Parts: sequence; structure tokens; C-alpha cells
Amino acid sequence: MILKALGEDRLLGQLLPRLPLAKSVPVGAGDDCALVKPPAGGNLLVLKTDCLVEGIHFLSRTAPQDVGWKAMMRPLSDFAATSALPQFALITLIASKETEAEWVKRLYGGLCRAAKRFKVSIVGGETSSTRGPIAISVSVVGFVEKDRWASRRGGKDGDDLFVTGRLGGASRAKHLRFMPRIAESRWLTKNFPVHAMMDLSDGLGVDLPRLARASKVGFSVEMENLPLTRGTKIDNAISEGEDYELLFAISPRQSKRLQKDWRRKFPKLLLTRIGKLNSKFEIRNSKFSRGYVHFQQSS
Amino acid sequence: MILKALGEDRLLGQLLPRLPLAKSVPVGAGDDCALVKPPAGGNLLVLKTDCLVEGIHFLSRTAPQDVGWKAMMRPLSDFAATSALPQFALITLIASKETEAEWVKRLYGGLCRAAKRFKVSIVGGETSSTRGPIAISVSVVGFVEKDRWASRRGGKDGDDLFVTGRLGGASRAKHLRFMPRIAESRWLTKNFPVHAMMDLSDGLGVDLPRLARASKVGFSVEMENLPLTRGTKIDNAISEGEDYELLFAISPRQSKRLQKDWRRKFPKLLLTRIGKLNSKFEIRNSKFSRGYVHFQQSS
Repeated sequence: MILKALGEDRLLGQLLPRLPLAKSVPVGAGDDCALVKPPAGGNLLVLKTDCLVEGIHFLSRTAPQDVGWKAMMRPLSDFAATSALPQFALITLIASKETEAEWVKRLYGGLCRAAKRFKVSIVGGETSSTRGPIAISVSVVGFVEKDRWASRRGGKDGDDLFVTGRLGGASRAKHLRFMPRIAESRWLTKNFPVHAMMDLSDGLGVDLPRLARASKVGFSVEMENLPLTRGTKIDNAISEGEDYELLFAISPRQSKRLQKDWRRKFPKLLLTRIGKLNSKFEIRNSKFSRGYVHFQQSS
Repeated sequence: MILKALGEDRLLGQLLPRLPLAKSVPVGAGDDCALVKPPAGGNLLVLKTDCLVEGIHFLSRTAPQDVGWKAMMRPLSDFAATSALPQFALITLIASKETEAEWVKRLYGGLCRAAKRFKVSIVGGETSSTRGPIAISVSVVGFVEKDRWASRRGGKDGDDLFVTGRLGGASRAKHLRFMPRIAESRWLTKNFPVHAMMDLSDGLGVDLPRLARASKVGFSVEMENLPLTRGTKIDNAISEGEDYELLFAISPRQSKRLQKDWRRKFPKLLLTRIGKLNSKFEIRNSKFSRGYVHFQQSS
């Protein structure tokens, strides 16, 4: 059955009872606004929105469960970048009236599975028709302790640069089934003074210059040390994007202890020192600034 | 200049410095997540997301300032329905690479003007390209006192039903330039025990049955009492939608004092008793359930 035949209210009637909901949600989806309990005193609210568009971030033939997973996990990867804990999500679905209701239910299956993985409640959303491609926008609200949030700013001259996992090759399948590094990020800020952090979504070649600009420093990367996904080349690791790994800067005095403790805590996830921040506020390697940029004309 | 030529980072560089930002925002747009101060203890967090799609909610020739105003004011109208105060907004813009950057700047002009009107900070967002129509999704976070929030539930058998303003005729211009009834709603819950409330976005004919269903009661409407916009008919008032007026239920014992105090407080805004809630959980008048429904086939 297509959406036009099912109707918005019946669609919602089928979707809403299945949404994951914590006890901290007095009023969830179905009313004009959602009402939720605020974080405890001493914590900051953390807000993030992100979207997927058919033909740009996924294909018409992509499994809807994978689309849902990706739509939820992309903003959660930004929570990892901030070392924050996500709690509540709002979902906006823009779809044609001819979309199969079954497709939408599977999409929500993926959204819910991803939300449950990180104990996120889906507390509301919006549906709209369109004459164009499907788009899914997910906004997430959560919290972080006042003395523990990470940002792109704060990187210092001389800091060591680390990345988690392996880079490149995302376009084959990883971009649909990645795991936001929230557990790793929370462990990092609990145990180490992280100067600057972000998640790699547009590719190291675009994202590292962003971190450096925000921190007002330069950087050097040891290309031969980049942790490549098997079967990919350096160019993939720099320009492909959608790695959803963490990139962070930390004092070199902490590097040894970090690497030792990391291996014990996360034995299955690689942690690699890929270079350093320095005082030269310039980008020398022309390979950088070649990740995926929305709206930008390819060179 | 079109977006493809300008590029995402340069576009953001031009937009971000102009965004309204309160002091309660330690980290605004430009980082992975936004960080904001949570509401004081005793308040609940309020979350809402909404979207506009070109060809559905606005036309390609609609002035972009008006599109921005409407995109921000629609979720704020839901805050009015909840009697909540909005504080922070996230904006997702999905647009073709061929979109004029000037159009986007004017859109943000409208978004910012609307946000400032209610002291809302624009703390972040996302841009994505698309091969389809433009879409703008706005998520808003705010707060409401624990003992003061309104919802669609809670209407009681015998309650009087009131609407603010006039209904119908929205499609001519009002749907682009309306004012969310936040001040009125806050005054209402401060001074009267409001049993149930919502904003009229899809039309009285669809929205009133929703309020009745959520409250598990029936309703009767005195058609001859509906406050019609000049030049419109009863059918417009019921089915056209996009009135963005408040509909609420209150004990008949409060009605007289309410009407008297309202005239003094809001002399320029009509308040009309349009009917009653009753115990018959059914919808008799066939004109009802004829507002605007997304995805529904018109009968």
C-alpha cells in the first residue's frame, strides 16, 4: 500500500506505538510538542540536526533499514565528536505520496534499532509530502558534563593527532552500517585531556583543515601512517568521506599512556597517530581540502 | 551566484555571523554539535520539529523572506499550543546546487527575523544538496513549567471550546505572515486552568477531531458562531487549514471571566466560543475531517 492510500494519521498510528521511549519522556510523539525531562544541573544541553537525501546520501535501491540506521547514526556521530550522550530524537520524513508504506515502516525499523543501540527515545517528528526525492532529517538532543565537552577548537601547537579505526572505502558499505564512536569518546574525555575532537564525515582532507582552522593552528600528516581500509588507497582515506571515525588532538605527553590504555580498553579498534598540529596556520598538502563538500564544484 | 559556485563553507561563513544568539549558548553553529544551557530545575524541555517543502508549503515564486518566516513560525506555533517558551533552533536546508545564494540569504533573513521576534537563538543546522525541490526543516528546543504545559489531552465533557482570531482565507497571504499565539497562550495558562489546547494548522475540521480523540470525548460546533475571515465561507474556516490560531477547551465556569479579561488584555484579537466538548465520542458532522491531510487522497 502506498502512503496516499494509507493516510498520515493511520501511518502514524502504526509507527508511534513502536518507537523507543524512556521514562524521562512525559509526552512523546503525537502531540504538538514533545516534553522531556531536562538534564541534571551541571550539564549542558547538546543539540544536533542532520539529514539524508535520496540520490545524494543513499540510492533508491538502498535497503530502507540501512537508510534509517544511517539517518540516526550520523547525528549520533556528532555526539561522539562532542563527547556527549544522546537522549531524544525528532524525525522529519519528506516523501512522495507514492512511497510504499512498507518502505517507511522498514525505514523506521532502522531508525528505532539505531536509537535503541544508544538508548535514545524517538519523541516526535513530522511527515510531509513532496514531488521530489525522499529526505529524512533527524534532530537529536542530549547532554554533556560542563567540564567534559569536546569541540573543534582548542587544538594546540605540538599536539599529536589521532584517528580511530580505518579510513577510506566507506562508499562500499561502511557508510550505511557504521557505529558512532560514543563509547570511545566518552572513555577518552573521562581519562584524558582531549584538546580538540571531531568526527570524520566529509573526509580527512576536508575535516582536518576545519579542525585546524577552528583551533587556529596548522597541521602535518604522515601519509605513510594513515590507517587504510583493506583494498583502499591514500586518496580514498583522504577524500572519500563518511568514515565516521574520531579525529582528535592531545598533548604528546599523553600519547604513550593513551595508546597503551586504548589497546587494553578497545582491543578490536585501531588507534593511530597520524600527525601533529603545528603553529603554521596554512595548508600545504594539496590533497587536503579534497573531501566531499556539499554545493562545491568539483575541481 | 549559485550555491555550487559559492561552496558550503563560504555560504556558512556568510550566514553564521548574522544568526541571533543569546548568552545561554556556549557553542553555537559551526561545530559538530551546539551546546546550550539547560532550563532551570522544575521546568520540562520542549522539543518540536517541522518542515516546509517547495511546491507543497510554498511556491518557487514565494518571497524567500516569507518562506523563512513561515519555516520558523510553524514550530513556534506548536510551542504556543503547548504554552511553552522557545529558546533554540536548528535549521536544515536541502537545496539544489543551482539555487541562488541570494535566495538562501533572504531565506535566512526571514528565519532570523522570526527567531528574534521570540528571542530564539539559531544555534546550528545542516545543509545538503538535492536534485529535487527545496526543503527547510526547523527543530526548536525550549521549556515549560511542570505545572503549566498544555496538550491535546485533558479536554472534559462539558468544556467550552474557544478559538483565537479568525479562521479561513489563509491561502491568500496569512499562511506566510502569521504570528504564533505564544503571548496569548502563556497568558492563558498563567490565569486559567486550560484543559486541552492545540494550534490550528490543518484546519478545524481535522484538528478539532484530533483534540477530541486525544481527550477521549466528542464535540459539537455552532457553525453560525465560527469567526470567519472577511470574504471567506464556513467551508474555508473548516477545511482550508494554516490558520495558526489556538483552539482550547476550558470549564464553562471560567468562560465569562475569560472573555472579559481577554478583551482587556488582547483588545485587537478576537476570542470566540465555537462549541462544546461532550461525552459522545463520535464525529457527526461530515464537514469535519476535511482539513488538509498529508498523503491522504482527496475525496
